[in-house]
Amino acid sequence: MPSTPCSPANHRCVDIHPARSEDNDDLGSLRGWQSTDRATMPPPGGGVQAAERRQKHHSRSFSRQISLESARMSREGRRSLPRSGKSLGGGACVDGGLRKGDFSMFRTKSGLGVVAAARKENEAGPNNHAGEGGALHGARAEESRVSDSVPAGRYFAALRGPELDQVRDSEDILLPKDEVWPFLLRFPIGCFGICLGLGTQAILWGALASSSAMAFLHVSPAINLAIWLLALAAFVSVSVTYAFKCVFYFEAIRREYFHPVRVNFFFAPSIACMFLAIGAPPRMRPFFLHPATWCVLIAPVILLELKIYGQWLSGGKRRLCKVANPSSHLSVVGNFVGAILAARVGWQEAGKFLWAVGLAHYLCVFVTLYQRLTTSEALPKELHPVYSMFIATPSAASIAWATIYGEFDAVSRTFYFIALFLYCSLFVRINFFRGFKFSVAWWSYTFPMTTASLATIKYAEAVPSFFSKALALSLSLMSSTIVSLLLVSTLLHAFVWKSLFPNDLAIAITITKDRNGATKRSKAANKSYDIKRWAMQSPLALVSSIRRGGSEQEELETN
Amino acid sequence: MPSTPCSPANHRCVDIHPARSEDNDDLGSLRGWQSTDRATMPPPGGGVQAAERRQKHHSRSFSRQISLESARMSREGRRSLPRSGKSLGGGACVDGGLRKGDFSMFRTKSGLGVVAAARKENEAGPNNHAGEGGALHGARAEESRVSDSVPAGRYFAALRGPELDQVRDSEDILLPKDEVWPFLLRFPIGCFGICLGLGTQAILWGALASSSAMAFLHVSPAINLAIWLLALAAFVSVSVTYAFKCVFYFEAIRREYFHPVRVNFFFAPSIACMFLAIGAPPRMRPFFLHPATWCVLIAPVILLELKIYGQWLSGGKRRLCKVANPSSHLSVVGNFVGAILAARVGWQEAGKFLWAVGLAHYLCVFVTLYQRLTTSEALPKELHPVYSMFIATPSAASIAWATIYGEFDAVSRTFYFIALFLYCSLFVRINFFRGFKFSVAWWSYTFPMTTASLATIKYAEAVPSFFSKALALSLSLMSSTIVSLLLVSTLLHAFVWKSLFPNDLAIAITITKDRNGATKRSKAANKSYDIKRWAMQSPLALVSSIRRGGSEQEELETN
Amino acid sequence: MPSTPCSPANHRCVDIHPARSEDNDDLGSLRGWQSTDRATMPPPGGGVQAAERRQKHHSRSFSRQISLESARMSREGRRSLPRSGKSLGGGACVDGGLRKGDFSMFRTKSGLGVVAAARKENEAGPNNHAGEGGALHGARAEESRVSDSVPAGRYFAALRGPELDQVRDSEDILLPKDEVWPFLLRFPIGCFGICLGLGTQAILWGALASSSAMAFLHVSPAINLAIWLLALAAFVSVSVTYAFKCVFYFEAIRREYFHPVRVNFFFAPSIACMFLAIGAPPRMRPFFLHPATWCVLIAPVILLELKIYGQWLSGGKRRLCKVANPSSHLSVVGNFVGAILAARVGWQEAGKFLWAVGLAHYLCVFVTLYQRLTTSEALPKELHPVYSMFIATPSAASIAWATIYGEFDAVSRTFYFIALFLYCSLFVRINFFRGFKFSVAWWSYTFPMTTASLATIKYAEAVPSFFSKALALSLSLMSSTIVSLLLVSTLLHAFVWKSLFPNDLAIAITITKDRNGATKRSKAANKSYDIKRWAMQSPLALVSSIRRGGSEQEELETN
Repeated sequence: MPSTPCSPANHRCVDIHPARSEDNDDLGSLRGWQSTDRATMPPPGGGVQAAERRQKHHSRSFSRQISLESARMSREGRRSLPRSGKSLGGGACVDGGLRKGDFSMFRTKSGLGVVAAARKENEAGPNNHAGEGGALHGARAEESRVSDSVPAGRYFAALRGPELDQVRDSEDILLPKDEVWPFLLRFPIGCFGICLGLGTQAILWGALASSSAMAFLHVSPAINLAIWLLALAAFVSVSVTYAFKCVFYFEAIRREYFHPVRVNFFFAPSIACMFLAIGAPPRMRPFFLHPATWCVLIAPVILLELKIYGQWLSGGKRRLCKVANPSSHLSVVGNFVGAILAARVGWQEAGKFLWAVGLAHYLCVFVTLYQRLTTSEALPKELHPVYSMFIATPSAASIAWATIYGEFDAVSRTFYFIALFLYCSLFVRINFFRGFKFSVAWWSYTFPMTTASLATIKYAEAVPSFFSKALALSLSLMSSTIVSLLLVSTLLHAFVWKSLFPNDLAIAITITKDRNGATKRSKAANKSYDIKRWAMQSPLALVSSIRRGGSEQEELETN
Repeated sequence: MPSTPCSPANHRCVDIHPARSEDNDDLGSLRGWQSTDRATMPPPGGGVQAAERRQKHHSRSFSRQISLESARMSREGRRSLPRSGKSLGGGACVDGGLRKGDFSMFRTKSGLGVVAAARKENEAGPNNHAGEGGALHGARAEESRVSDSVPAGRYFAALRGPELDQVRDSEDILLPKDEVWPFLLRFPIGCFGICLGLGTQAILWGALASSSAMAFLHVSPAINLAIWLLALAAFVSVSVTYAFKCVFYFEAIRREYFHPVRVNFFFAPSIACMFLAIGAPPRMRPFFLHPATWCVLIAPVILLELKIYGQWLSGGKRRLCKVANPSSHLSVVGNFVGAILAARVGWQEAGKFLWAVGLAHYLCVFVTLYQRLTTSEALPKELHPVYSMFIATPSAASIAWATIYGEFDAVSRTFYFIALFLYCSLFVRINFFRGFKFSVAWWSYTFPMTTASLATIKYAEAVPSFFSKALALSLSLMSSTIVSLLLVSTLLHAFVWKSLFPNDLAIAITITKDRNGATKRSKAANKSYDIKRWAMQSPLALVSSIRRGGSEQEELETN
Repeated sequence: MPSTPCSPANHRCVDIHPARSEDNDDLGSLRGWQSTDRATMPPPGGGVQAAERRQKHHSRSFSRQISLESARMSREGRRSLPRSGKSLGGGACVDGGLRKGDFSMFRTKSGLGVVAAARKENEAGPNNHAGEGGALHGARAEESRVSDSVPAGRYFAALRGPELDQVRDSEDILLPKDEVWPFLLRFPIGCFGICLGLGTQAILWGALASSSAMAFLHVSPAINLAIWLLALAAFVSVSVTYAFKCVFYFEAIRREYFHPVRVNFFFAPSIACMFLAIGAPPRMRPFFLHPATWCVLIAPVILLELKIYGQWLSGGKRRLCKVANPSSHLSVVGNFVGAILAARVGWQEAGKFLWAVGLAHYLCVFVTLYQRLTTSEALPKELHPVYSMFIATPSAASIAWATIYGEFDAVSRTFYFIALFLYCSLFVRINFFRGFKFSVAWWSYTFPMTTASLATIKYAEAVPSFFSKALALSLSLMSSTIVSLLLVSTLLHAFVWKSLFPNDLAIAITITKDRNGATKRSKAANKSYDIKRWAMQSPLALVSSIRRGGSEQEELETN
């Protein structure tokens, strides 16, 4: 492993360096652990001081390995460390291997093993924390386990926005913000939204071509075929790409899974596939509309539901009153889409089962979202395209009931009309939906509109009148237009502006709270308590903490 | 404009006047703005000091026009103002025109324009805030805009009672409590409750006359006609009066609209009108039961629903978990009444649409009210007649379903029996309903009982038995008795005791919190923060705020 | 009354005794009041000091009788009391009569009267609180009234566990923990769960014997008869025992009624009886399936519902968002069981009424439980057998609808499938259900499984297929197996290990918070506020409170 020695002079300047500014990149210690075999390259604009700082983080990492709670202590310990020259070499090595490690932390476990081994060697050098050395390996293993499952509360604390995809200003992230990450790390689960959007369009154009109510349009079935093939191509490419991400960056996928909003998108692959099966052109139907297909496609939905709905029920940070957000509809709509497919393959009873499960949980989600409980941390303050999800579930429930029971009866109508009212309700607030930056997630917001169009076509079949047909036509055109616009937009972003996949900051939040930022916001009383703990934990940190404690005491008194 | 000069001696006594007592009528500044052409008349018991105080408010209004936030600063500035004699004349003028201005602040905008012009002249005089003079006009326009839309939180903070119609002791109001306001200002939107009560009675007696289940009573259709004409007369007179209020005191209506409980009563005019159409005597039916009537009557309901339900969904002080209260049922019941009318005019599909919309929102309201979320600020602690609203919606839903689908089937029965159980549940708690002061709002609580009677008659038609007929008869008699009692009560209050319309305090709460009262209740820590802000904002206020700050510091330490 | 004098020396040692340790048994004062005619017997391990302590509690009880709020003051007063020798004799008397009083406090009122009279005599002795003596009698009457209705908040504060049956460590109870209480006091209302479990088993084996779908099993009707007789025997013995508790320890039953979880079990007797009626063997059906039976059995259910649902709606500590917990299903399931019985006795309309009432409240309970509102204090953190209650209500609703309307249609299926999904959802978490100590309450968790089996048999009749029959068979066997295991377990606990009825700690919590424990947990700021109050209230306590206040001030500053 190449070693790039740092001059001792740099180390001495640490004391001059203001303590406050150092605290901000507590996460650096995590970066330091990922050191492997990449050449030293000082980050842009950072220079010697940045390298220096990283060096210190490495030193700190030892104390942090004892427990996440003792992080504050290590921050104190850091200041005195550079005075002992021992950590120089090791620090430099870490520095040299740092940049590669940034991304490898999201690698699948086997990859991490290699990293861990390399890390071990580095750590053998600087042993000024002799007493703590024994617990090193066990603690590190624990650390990596913790890094896998970020608590739900952290996502709410560190992220913001209706999709929880933006990092709060006070938070720092594990990966460098100022460079482009590997493609697979930037490929979010939300990309399956493209398949949802295109899949429902294929169904829509199939319905427009075959529906008796829309016969006056004389739509060619070829359009259905073309869009279906496009949807299939999109699904295959997105799936393959995500499969690669699964293979290479499994830890990143774990983090997406623990993300309170993104977890709902894990239903998207199955639902997209079911859309493909439902919208298959006539000649491919015998293959797609087979009970076996249904079984294969519904299995992951049921399993994921048992998991997610169980999380809602069991107390904790993922209870429904905390995580409910418009994208929760995605975890309910799967039941209704599955019910449609079940009815199409001839398993009415299975369809009724899914419909009932969907109904029970739709009720909970609908009421919870409408109440806008103050405990719901993921709920966006303002309206947002994600609210179109509200339309998807009742539309799908309406179609599913009509498909299962063979007629568009009172239950179907009730759900359809609820969807229609919600559509109107969002439509009149359309100006709220403007001014948002385009992202792949937008695709997920098109399939509700298309589902509503499909339900309207079903309704127009049941109640053929000028009004119903006109409504079906206009809603269909609107959804197709929006999907076309999104398609063009996506292609432009992907191939012209090369900006389709920005860094996926949401997966790279730190596991523990950035202590410094937290301290700034916390109450002074808390701090003074911490002081005593620090004092007890580390004789090294005693003096500085008392000094800091003194100033905090003042704060306490003036507040 | 007549000018009544105040003696300078009065102005000098301001400094002697204790500072604390002045703070209480911060709202006076608003009154001051409304100065017009009324003769000077010192308020009863106030005398010179009251006039003096009003004078100061006028002076203060200049600084307040900068922004509502700087209100505290202006309170400080007030103390130093009288030392400059310039504001004397202007102040006196304001004083002279004050009492008229009290009520004109609720005038419609055009009326305000005149006032504003008059006010402008007054303000030209005292220009000791030269630097702030430039922003005067713009700021004033903004101020008046703010005064229009009182934030929802203010209503909860300033009012109490199940109908949020009583002012908390700690709050002050914009209008004088000790005199009778203009009639139109005391005429609340709740008066349409009279039309609801009489309209449903007309329907009830029509049903009693025509229903096969009630044929044994031999009720004459003439009673229906008589009550219907009475209801029509009541509707016309209430509508005309409220239209006048709309023309002359539009600002008061805006404040009723922003009131979290009253806003639901804005559905009442349309619903009352629909009741009239449904209960129209046979000979007038061809006119009333025409699709065009339905379209005209349902339009405001739909528009208001899009607005109100949208507020429930979007985050803020008007989200469902905050504003849910029994009168929210009024904003849901409109759908079901509209569905009944739609079915009567022959538009079944429109009826089904409204029924579905009503169902979805009824579910949310019902569950939310039953949970009694702790976040719901408008929910009365104790039972109250307003709880009878609980009966209205399921009864109306039951009748609507039966009317649309032509039979009293399982769905109708389910809703009917829910209504019946809630009726029992409230009936056994009837002693909770006593001891409340009569008000016009009581009328709104009669129509649920009548609707339940109507649903029972429908049920007795479907299940003709002794029990069902006896129930229908007794519920009908009970509702008619209560409506009769209320009618007599209302007539007595209106024409004998002249106490039907007390001052409508709820519309006259101050927009910003009465700072002094608030400060008393707020935490000491907040205050010390404010001190620093004051110090930064106004050099004039510096000394006094520091002095006051010192006393607050003491409070902090002793607490 | 025998008097056992304590030596004055013991009293003097109070001052040496550390103050902190004394504070822990504030509840002793309540025990002291219950002094009657039992021989003096120092508690095991307590010896002279314990007797001494009890003595002090008695003295304290005088000051406590003034108001519950002045409890802290009395704690101070206690320290100075022993210096006056007057309380010696009286204290000894109380000590002498203490142990009998322990249990008699839960006696029915007439019994309490005797105790109160005896107590009065004791209190006549030590009159060193002369000024407060006048209010003694009235205050004591109030105290005993308070002891009857423990506020709901106290149960949440003092108890823990999913059934709120374990006392928190910080809390003390009114009865001795270290000895076995009278049998009736240890006999909880939850014992009716045995009848629920056996009753549904009787119905299940009747259905297995008679159902066309299960005909291939050739189950003998004799099994139904045998289990039914067993269930009847269990019901009679449990009822008789509980009736005795009702007669002798009515106060204990009141405390069970006010317990937020246990109150739901008051529905169990009626429901168990209805199960017996529904599952009656063919020859006894003419007697059991008579409308009069239904009327008698449903009356307590309806009355209790009016009470409980009313509590949910009216604001307070028992509102739904606070008390909702899985056992709330018990208060809903009664409607559906009643609906089944109503349909069996031929009163379809009554069945529909109950079904509608059940639906409305099931909706509220289901949504509330699924949301897991943070305000719900009774909700267990972890999964627990009590969650099986989730299955009971939709199963019963499904059976009820099918019984009323004569076919297993879409509504029945929807509810059945919801139950089935919840069953799966809990089944995959089965490992959560292990590791709990057996208790009688477990019986209540078997009847949901049996109800689900019954619904599955109904479903298998409607959709006869291999899958449905296999499901019905396996669910039936599973529920029977678990009931058998529980039966064996119960018999072993009852007759071999003699541990079926441990002390029922939940009913013996103190009415007021154990002040000392609370203070330890409360914020320092609170304490310093208290100091001032103490100082104002009691001149006696002034010095010590100031001294203590000083130390608390220090705590405040170091925190």
